[in-house]
Amino acid sequence: MTVAIYPGSFDPITHGHIDIIKRASSIFDELIVGVYDRPEKRLLFSTEERVRMAQQAIAHLKNVRVQSYSSLTVDFAKKVGAQVMVRGLRMSSDFEREFEMAMMNKKLAPDLELVCCMASLQYQFLSSSLLKEVAQLGGCLEEMVPDHVAAALRGRFAPEACPPSRKGVSR
Amino acid sequence: MTVAIYPGSFDPITHGHIDIIKRASSIFDELIVGVYDRPEKRLLFSTEERVRMAQQAIAHLKNVRVQSYSSLTVDFAKKVGAQVMVRGLRMSSDFEREFEMAMMNKKLAPDLELVCCMASLQYQFLSSSLLKEVAQLGGCLEEMVPDHVAAALRGRFAPEACPPSRKGVSR
Amino acid sequence: MTVAIYPGSFDPITHGHIDIIKRASSIFDELIVGVYDRPEKRLLFSTEERVRMAQQAIAHLKNVRVQSYSSLTVDFAKKVGAQVMVRGLRMSSDFEREFEMAMMNKKLAPDLELVCCMASLQYQFLSSSLLKEVAQLGGCLEEMVPDHVAAALRGRFAPEACPPSRKGVSR
Amino acid sequence: MTVAIYPGSFDPITHGHIDIIKRASSIFDELIVGVYDRPEKRLLFSTEERVRMAQQAIAHLKNVRVQSYSSLTVDFAKKVGAQVMVRGLRMSSDFEREFEMAMMNKKLAPDLELVCCMASLQYQFLSSSLLKEVAQLGGCLEEMVPDHVAAALRGRFAPEACPPSRKGVSR
Amino acid sequence: MTVAIYPGSFDPITHGHIDIIKRASSIFDELIVGVYDRPEKRLLFSTEERVRMAQQAIAHLKNVRVQSYSSLTVDFAKKVGAQVMVRGLRMSSDFEREFEMAMMNKKLAPDLELVCCMASLQYQFLSSSLLKEVAQLGGCLEEMVPDHVAAALRGRFAPEACPPSRKGVSR
Amino acid sequence: MTVAIYPGSFDPITHGHIDIIKRASSIFDELIVGVYDRPEKRLLFSTEERVRMAQQAIAHLKNVRVQSYSSLTVDFAKKVGAQVMVRGLRMSSDFEREFEMAMMNKKLAPDLELVCCMASLQYQFLSSSLLKEVAQLGGCLEEMVPDHVAAALRGRFAPEACPPSRKGVSR
Repeated sequence: MTVAIYPGSFDPITHGHIDIIKRASSIFDELIVGVYDRPEKRLLFSTEERVRMAQQAIAHLKNVRVQSYSSLTVDFAKKVGAQVMVRGLRMSSDFEREFEMAMMNKKLAPDLELVCCMASLQYQFLSSSLLKEVAQLGGCLEEMVPDHVAAALRGRFAPEACPPSRKGVSR
Repeated sequence: MTVAIYPGSFDPITHGHIDIIKRASSIFDELIVGVYDRPEKRLLFSTEERVRMAQQAIAHLKNVRVQSYSSLTVDFAKKVGAQVMVRGLRMSSDFEREFEMAMMNKKLAPDLELVCCMASLQYQFLSSSLLKEVAQLGGCLEEMVPDHVAAALRGRFAPEACPPSRKGVSR
Repeated sequence: MTVAIYPGSFDPITHGHIDIIKRASSIFDELIVGVYDRPEKRLLFSTEERVRMAQQAIAHLKNVRVQSYSSLTVDFAKKVGAQVMVRGLRMSSDFEREFEMAMMNKKLAPDLELVCCMASLQYQFLSSSLLKEVAQLGGCLEEMVPDHVAAALRGRFAPEACPPSRKGVSR
Repeated sequence: MTVAIYPGSFDPITHGHIDIIKRASSIFDELIVGVYDRPEKRLLFSTEERVRMAQQAIAHLKNVRVQSYSSLTVDFAKKVGAQVMVRGLRMSSDFEREFEMAMMNKKLAPDLELVCCMASLQYQFLSSSLLKEVAQLGGCLEEMVPDHVAAALRGRFAPEACPPSRKGVSR
Repeated sequence: MTVAIYPGSFDPITHGHIDIIKRASSIFDELIVGVYDRPEKRLLFSTEERVRMAQQAIAHLKNVRVQSYSSLTVDFAKKVGAQVMVRGLRMSSDFEREFEMAMMNKKLAPDLELVCCMASLQYQFLSSSLLKEVAQLGGCLEEMVPDHVAAALRGRFAPEACPPSRKGVSR
Repeated sequence: MTVAIYPGSFDPITHGHIDIIKRASSIFDELIVGVYDRPEKRLLFSTEERVRMAQQAIAHLKNVRVQSYSSLTVDFAKKVGAQVMVRGLRMSSDFEREFEMAMMNKKLAPDLELVCCMASLQYQFLSSSLLKEVAQLGGCLEEMVPDHVAAALRGRFAPEACPPSRKGVSR
């Protein structure tokens, strides 16, 4: 049985993350979404909020669960018995950073296998950080995040809902 | 009639920006330089200062005007009636970020056309952030920014003017 | 009045090219699609075929016409009175090559303005060369090229049409 | 049960390929190394030779087998019942090409999952094409390919074995 | 006689830096490691600590010395009489930033020659910033930094030494 | 005494190459321009022509000489007693290929030091291959290659000289 982790900040979880989770959960027997509690980086949502939003987003997937961690990712993988670490690959990824982390992780834990899943076309350019910038300025995010995440972003940034006239405008 | 916006922080405006403005203003009927009032990013100059420096730099261009904005860029474009958004393209651009923003903007405003103008060779490697680092350490910027911007940078960082012996050294 | 050229091999024209043509034709007064007769590169279709397929693809666009050329692109631009050269920008572009050509063209013709239009998301990864590889192996290209181009590709590579069961499978 | 294919030219198979095969075979239940019979590309070894060298290289891996194919890769995957396509990812990969192929394949076969395995540090910069250039000029390849492949390369390019004095020089 | 500088933050010095120092010191007559006292960037170690750690790391190299500076790097080069500035090149370098700095430095000091030395394979993906992240979470860094630097990192982040069972795990 | 080689095809030598040769010759005691006789790649000029054009271009540089070779570059370096291999670095370099070759060369000859010199701004986008394309179509190359090389290119492609009206047009 192959257990995989999918680590990240998930601040908040997007349809891009969910796309990768679906793919990985169809390939591996068990998938653990690891929500990293990074004290160094300024985050919008608390660890509890990020975990809860992720749980709600993947509730329909039987072999997936969400868990927070605060150690090295490779130590988290060992603790939960994962043999595989999953990363989502987008054309606008920071490949240099990805490779640095991958090589560092191989050094720290040679037995943990890294596999990258390719994001779908519609999520190739979706990043949490850009999404938060748009949310802050009142942009509509309905196709980029699940409804409960859109609501949480609005609650954080702007009280009124996305005006009906703009819904579904894109694509 | 085609109206275009050229959005940015312009902190401060450089000869690289002015190069793009000249190009775009020769192609489109009207060009609006949009100075973004970003509360999130630490800027050197206030919005008023950035607008004023930009206005002085483009005063000789008939069909160009400067305006600040604090909304989503696509909403600013709509408000001023622009059909086109101009971006300057440099070899040392952060292409990943450019594409992420472009695709996000297309999603938010499918009718706004993005066009990228190619920076001249001598400005291919000129960025506002690097320029500020150099200014702070007393480097001479005379060929990189207009005189009034160089003066403003000196006023912010160092009292004395660039020593005559070093002027025109480069190239 | 701004006249623009959009140069390329168009071997054959794809929906990605047509997307850029539509965008450029909405911004500029007149657009000339320049089909380059490259004797050096091995092409699938003759210049005449490439011109004819392009003409059919853009017949509905009033201010666009197709013309072949065999000189330097900057000389072609001068001959047809264009002030602007349009290039399509895709995330999977060969940026290094794009910049080399752009800087060379600026050197050869400083007055010709280069502008890049951003491909739509669904065409960000569509290239003529990959398309031809797929066509050769019998893959379905209905959403990537106009019907008359798909027919021409089938005529070149494989006699039978794309099986109905596979049509529309993707996306 | 998850069946995966690992497609390529394998002209010839290198330790870099074998590294990816080992990783993938430890994650998936069955792995089929697909040797592509590309009539378009000039290859050094025949399909039969490439298959045989690959078979010898992976003989010790129980759940791996080698098979040649001449169709679209996605059709090969379907034929052998694979749900996953494996690609090796190196820092010196042609990412643009990788993404183009990945998006094309998703369009042609939405159900086939692409996963990328990360090459080990020592194989991050090893490519078959560079290897052949070096072999042709008499360079020692003992740490880059299995012995039987090194012998085949010598047989093709140069009669004498790698001089003992140079063996093991590197690293 | 050719004098070279090798400027950087060295926060802290790593085996990757030392690799470049050794290479450069074998090529040039004299090498000055310039420790930049950057007031803008948040650093882990003080300038004194960074200088001392670097000095200890290169004590065995006759023609190398360490010196801190707080001016423009090109002014530091002039002050110490250097004709050459050395940079380490890694595949995961931020090339855009490197080129921006290089072109800016050429503008400011046309006579100072920039040469890039290629990092060894095992240091191609080693960065000070990633190293600090790992150190903070208790990861073992014994092969990435000299012992006295590892001790300093542990002193800053975690009291206990790296557990024996994990030493030498990687590679 | 440090001996360096600067290997390449030099088909033909450009001002970009000469720029790197000048830089390298000011840093190292002796520089050998290695003209590679590549039987695999289609070249415009014969090895003799390429050597002669390079010799004429660097005749004024005392510590530089030109020599052809047909072996592995690392073997050529050894034969001429070079400790250093010089490469020119341009923003539009194929970095992936550069790193692959560098790592391969380090494996084959660990003692040969690779150093990269940074091309001047005006040569950052100049490549021999693009230059030949332009020459073939009659473009003016006077600022990109020495006069004797421009004459050789004209002799190969077009009989008449560059029209006076176009000389010196660019920058």
